[in-house]
Amino acid sequence: MAETVGFIGLGIMGQGMASNLAKAGAKVVVWNRSEGKRSAFVAEHEGCSAAASPKEVVESCELTYLMLSDLEASKSVYEGEDGVLAGVSEGKCLVDCATLTPEHMTSLSERVQAKGGVFLEAPVSGSKGQAAGGTLIFLCGGDEALFNRVKESMEGDGVTMGKAAHYLGAVGTGSKMKLVVNMTMGTMMNSLTEGIALAQAADLPADKLLTVLDQGAMSNPMFRMKGQFILDGKFDPAFPLKHAQKDMRFAVALGDCLGLPLPVASAANEQFKRARPEHGDEDFCAVFAASKK
Amino acid sequence: MAETVGFIGLGIMGQGMASNLAKAGAKVVVWNRSEGKRSAFVAEHEGCSAAASPKEVVESCELTYLMLSDLEASKSVYEGEDGVLAGVSEGKCLVDCATLTPEHMTSLSERVQAKGGVFLEAPVSGSKGQAAGGTLIFLCGGDEALFNRVKESMEGDGVTMGKAAHYLGAVGTGSKMKLVVNMTMGTMMNSLTEGIALAQAADLPADKLLTVLDQGAMSNPMFRMKGQFILDGKFDPAFPLKHAQKDMRFAVALGDCLGLPLPVASAANEQFKRARPEHGDEDFCAVFAASKK
Amino acid sequence: MAETVGFIGLGIMGQGMASNLAKAGAKVVVWNRSEGKRSAFVAEHEGCSAAASPKEVVESCELTYLMLSDLEASKSVYEGEDGVLAGVSEGKCLVDCATLTPEHMTSLSERVQAKGGVFLEAPVSGSKGQAAGGTLIFLCGGDEALFNRVKESMEGDGVTMGKAAHYLGAVGTGSKMKLVVNMTMGTMMNSLTEGIALAQAADLPADKLLTVLDQGAMSNPMFRMKGQFILDGKFDPAFPLKHAQKDMRFAVALGDCLGLPLPVASAANEQFKRARPEHGDEDFCAVFAASKK
Amino acid sequence: MAETVGFIGLGIMGQGMASNLAKAGAKVVVWNRSEGKRSAFVAEHEGCSAAASPKEVVESCELTYLMLSDLEASKSVYEGEDGVLAGVSEGKCLVDCATLTPEHMTSLSERVQAKGGVFLEAPVSGSKGQAAGGTLIFLCGGDEALFNRVKESMEGDGVTMGKAAHYLGAVGTGSKMKLVVNMTMGTMMNSLTEGIALAQAADLPADKLLTVLDQGAMSNPMFRMKGQFILDGKFDPAFPLKHAQKDMRFAVALGDCLGLPLPVASAANEQFKRARPEHGDEDFCAVFAASKK
Repeated sequence: MAETVGFIGLGIMGQGMASNLAKAGAKVVVWNRSEGKRSAFVAEHEGCSAAASPKEVVESCELTYLMLSDLEASKSVYEGEDGVLAGVSEGKCLVDCATLTPEHMTSLSERVQAKGGVFLEAPVSGSKGQAAGGTLIFLCGGDEALFNRVKESMEGDGVTMGKAAHYLGAVGTGSKMKLVVNMTMGTMMNSLTEGIALAQAADLPADKLLTVLDQGAMSNPMFRMKGQFILDGKFDPAFPLKHAQKDMRFAVALGDCLGLPLPVASAANEQFKRARPEHGDEDFCAVFAASKK
Repeated sequence: MAETVGFIGLGIMGQGMASNLAKAGAKVVVWNRSEGKRSAFVAEHEGCSAAASPKEVVESCELTYLMLSDLEASKSVYEGEDGVLAGVSEGKCLVDCATLTPEHMTSLSERVQAKGGVFLEAPVSGSKGQAAGGTLIFLCGGDEALFNRVKESMEGDGVTMGKAAHYLGAVGTGSKMKLVVNMTMGTMMNSLTEGIALAQAADLPADKLLTVLDQGAMSNPMFRMKGQFILDGKFDPAFPLKHAQKDMRFAVALGDCLGLPLPVASAANEQFKRARPEHGDEDFCAVFAASKK
Repeated sequence: MAETVGFIGLGIMGQGMASNLAKAGAKVVVWNRSEGKRSAFVAEHEGCSAAASPKEVVESCELTYLMLSDLEASKSVYEGEDGVLAGVSEGKCLVDCATLTPEHMTSLSERVQAKGGVFLEAPVSGSKGQAAGGTLIFLCGGDEALFNRVKESMEGDGVTMGKAAHYLGAVGTGSKMKLVVNMTMGTMMNSLTEGIALAQAADLPADKLLTVLDQGAMSNPMFRMKGQFILDGKFDPAFPLKHAQKDMRFAVALGDCLGLPLPVASAANEQFKRARPEHGDEDFCAVFAASKK
Repeated sequence: MAETVGFIGLGIMGQGMASNLAKAGAKVVVWNRSEGKRSAFVAEHEGCSAAASPKEVVESCELTYLMLSDLEASKSVYEGEDGVLAGVSEGKCLVDCATLTPEHMTSLSERVQAKGGVFLEAPVSGSKGQAAGGTLIFLCGGDEALFNRVKESMEGDGVTMGKAAHYLGAVGTGSKMKLVVNMTMGTMMNSLTEGIALAQAADLPADKLLTVLDQGAMSNPMFRMKGQFILDGKFDPAFPLKHAQKDMRFAVALGDCLGLPLPVASAANEQFKRARPEHGDEDFCAVFAASKK
């Protein structure tokens, strides 16, 4: 992968992803709202450069990845005279890795295509560690040819951004699958935090609870890692709680559109909301603050 | 383990457990409400025999295991002139593996001790497959000397009933830990069933959802196995839904006693209740019937 | 009503009820756990007297009313050598006004009848103000002849304990109806507290919300009175939150027995639990503490 | 009120409102999507007329009321070359009575003002019967001078559309208050439907439950009327369930924006979603279908 590619958004996730693209040999042209992260990235990655605006990234690269945290960030980066859309022309390829609503992705895709561009949504499953380690899972919808072209950057041999890439269909399907996955994760996290809370309230050794959970059919990396973090009171954000709650909100709204009640996810979502004002910037396992006595 | 031991309760779980005791060399004296299961067990396990009543089991064995499914079964087996308590005398050891309330276990323990007996609660984590395969996890409370004595039958080398045994403290602590574990599992199961339901409602390939879940930090044997069963519509009971709901009820009640709200487990419990009238005897993953559209 | 009647339990509710019996002309023989309340009652009500034990009340009166707050109080008053049951003999009539489980009432009834006594459960709808003002509503189950006999004390002309008495059938039906009524009330209270909480979070005038609610089809005395108390931060207990939560617990358990999920009442119950540790002795509208931001 | 006023939207609510304006003496210029309702209205109300488009209504009247059922209807009526906005010019006054999001109302207001128009949001509390009977409650936000001018049509002496009008502040405050009111109502309706469901499941007479509820502090017109409808299986829409659910959705979303968890309203919302696919066009008390066994 010796090409020049653009990367917009150097947050918790984007940093690791862009870095892996660079390690794989790409000359990455980056842009981030804060100048500091841009120059730090360029300083650390030989052959990479920073652009002055999202528009400039898209203009200078045939292929651009985007990793933005929420609807507001997405709108502010796409819109405006310096925005992504202003830079799109015939043949420009965009791979948007944000987790947003299917409707928003569809709207972005239409606007990109209207200007001759090619669009692939590619939200990822995984958080900070997976982004840095190149073990993300990409859930893609949109242009299938573009998917096939970028697939090697998502799950190829050698250094890549991820370990698996799934093509699910039209734009929107990737975002929907991502919402399903994150909703499952959000409820599952609450199953753990309520479990720990109940163990502690009952004066049971919570570390032994983690051991028992890990010896049975529920054994999973998330419980192992986050469970220990919860016991240690370590809530550094790998996946910020406010983003986890945003995904729960979108998933419950998707169910609403489809006429599907989701009472358990909905209860979990309310717990994330309860924790959000004080713990929104911490890791999503800080929903424990709402679970505990 | 060439001793003679009693085993009361040859249900879904008890069959595998008693069988493993027999395979390990014990002469097992069994009793079950239905005569058919008793004689079938004896026919299949050389050196084992059936007793005519719970009382007779306890009288003829110094050590007796019990595996009963619910409060009603427990009461009917312990009480009465042919019951367990009628057989307890100085030195008789009981290891009760049922998942019931901490209060009930404490009450049983007191009554057993009042007659000179020794009591260990030892509820297990795991279901039919783990019982048969000897990979249960025992969560024990009560007499520590008895725990140390029977530990080898729970996690020793060679054929045993389980792969791990934890001693947690006074009678009640084992039951409480078991309720915490099963509450976590019940909510976690709902995280999966609502995820599959949302995927299907959104016309996403649910098998791919299982793949994606299995590639990330949530990857766990329960999702793999039960997820496929759900897609295949296979609800043969490894862990009957009505028992899963019973455990959710007890766990939520434990939280109530301790002043701990458990809103997500509580919502999950209501879903199990919704599924119970029609699906109570199926596997607990049949809570999918309440989740799906 | 110039007869001698017993009254056991002079708590928030019992005081007003016994006082109304006295005002109606009855010579009331009272007992309460705390001697202070007994003697205060006797001092204030001419012709009334205090007994030394529940047993003594029952022995000295053909008809005894009971108003106890929870299962523990009920058990401690009925059991033991000085308890109610010890005083029951042929023809003794008991009217138990507590809100407990149908199972407990049925058990009490059986034990009373076994000794020749006559039993009526008569839980009341209404709280402190209604008890004092004689406007309670009695929800009765059990002996119908006893119901007809005591009905005048519950809804007759002149001074009575209540304004309506309903006979619902066998023992247990009164308790069940009471649980249904209080479950409805508990959820309804949460509809108000969440409404006020949302109004305040949105910087809307909460007093105007109360006005608007009172102008429409939802207009009801409870919202008017408790709504203002909530805005004023007045949480003096007319109906203690811990008792409201107890009733929610019993109602949800009744649904569980009957295979009926109650997801909204269940969510409301969790909110009462959330508020209980700090606000259990305040009025049940203090569930606002769990609703507000 | 002998003036000419516009009225757009002759649905369940709009018909009664426009009719009351006509009865009060106004020459009402109406528009509705379906031609049939337009001509029926004109035929029944002397002096009234129909316009060919929303634009024409606004152009021909200085003051126009709007009553639209949802976001889609609102967008389709405001937008386009025949839409409301196309007809707005300096001094045109719009009073929008729909219950939509505060954001949408704010956006409409800005666009109307940008063209020189004057905007008042005025969502109403009350349903079909109140609209017909002229007893609605108006919850207003926006231009205060316009509020004072139209107030007499909302709560004046003689025939008016309502019995009370509240001015709450800037555009958005009326919509927010309306969402709070309807959220309270939606949860309260679930308190009733779960109560009736539990009574029926327990073989208690549900009509007696309604009597008991009506004798106590919860007594309210909604329980009386809708309670009987539920027992009679009459679900003719006074307030369609799909609209009630829409308001719950918006209210929960408002809480989400403000960082306020609303676990009980959220559980109620899921019940409305559960009932919506089959009962969305019936009255909102048909949420009973989701509550009952």
